[in-house]
Amino acid sequence: MPEAFDDIVVTVERLLRRVAFIVKRRGRDILVDFGITYPQFNALLVLRDKPDMTMGELCEKLLLACSTATDLIDRMEKNGFLVRNRDAEDRRVIRLAVSEKGKQVITEVLVARRRYVASMLEKLSEDEQTRLAQSLDRLHSLMFSEKVNP
Amino acid sequence: MPEAFDDIVVTVERLLRRVAFIVKRRGRDILVDFGITYPQFNALLVLRDKPDMTMGELCEKLLLACSTATDLIDRMEKNGFLVRNRDAEDRRVIRLAVSEKGKQVITEVLVARRRYVASMLEKLSEDEQTRLAQSLDRLHSLMFSEKVNP
Repeated sequence: MPEAFDDIVVTVERLLRRVAFIVKRRGRDILVDFGITYPQFNALLVLRDKPDMTMGELCEKLLLACSTATDLIDRMEKNGFLVRNRDAEDRRVIRLAVSEKGKQVITEVLVARRRYVASMLEKLSEDEQTRLAQSLDRLHSLMFSEKVNP
Repeated sequence: MPEAFDDIVVTVERLLRRVAFIVKRRGRDILVDFGITYPQFNALLVLRDKPDMTMGELCEKLLLACSTATDLIDRMEKNGFLVRNRDAEDRRVIRLAVSEKGKQVITEVLVARRRYVASMLEKLSEDEQTRLAQSLDRLHSLMFSEKVNP
């Protein structure tokens, strides 16, 4: 029994938001132990996926005002989660890199989140697991290709 | 060709995080226009789903330290997004409610996010749309039943 398109849209938006929120809460204790906030942790994830970003690239990627992002990065550098390096070719350019401590917090948090996702997926059949992964992959590809070719 | 379970887990955790992040960025301009931050907006969503929460219930639900949540609520009340009401039965208890301005920002942001999700889902077949919604619903039900019966 096919649902109306509008109902599916409302459902998908709500479920994506809620499911991601529930997963994100796992690993929260680890963030507290490390003394790092969610926005700081998100910045670490972005920097890990694309190392050596400049401040300008990072605030664009995080969609934060650059003044907000600068405060964030200052605190993270002070607390040892990342380092500022001068570009080898152009010494005026500062590039950001995740420190060893930053890598450790990423690993621990992602392990906790994956452990939780695994405990949920175990309750699904193999077919259901595959369908979920494929559906999400299809959606992500669409979003990504739209970003590249707006 | 079935993927190994561990690969599916890593994929699902990553895609949920990225897809939700991309959707969340839509409607960001609206938040900026209203002068409301993401954590404040999340608090509004939680309060809309479960009205008349106390501060204690809200900080538990948001998984914030109560001192952090109190600062958040103070700012939101000052900016007119919510109101504090005294409980009719026990005047010592304060209950939180979303204001008209708060409801307006929720509506506008969700409309923007849904418009974006719709523009992605339009590119999928009806079968793919249904499969995605069903997979997310199944995962959400599992997470929810685990919360109720841990």
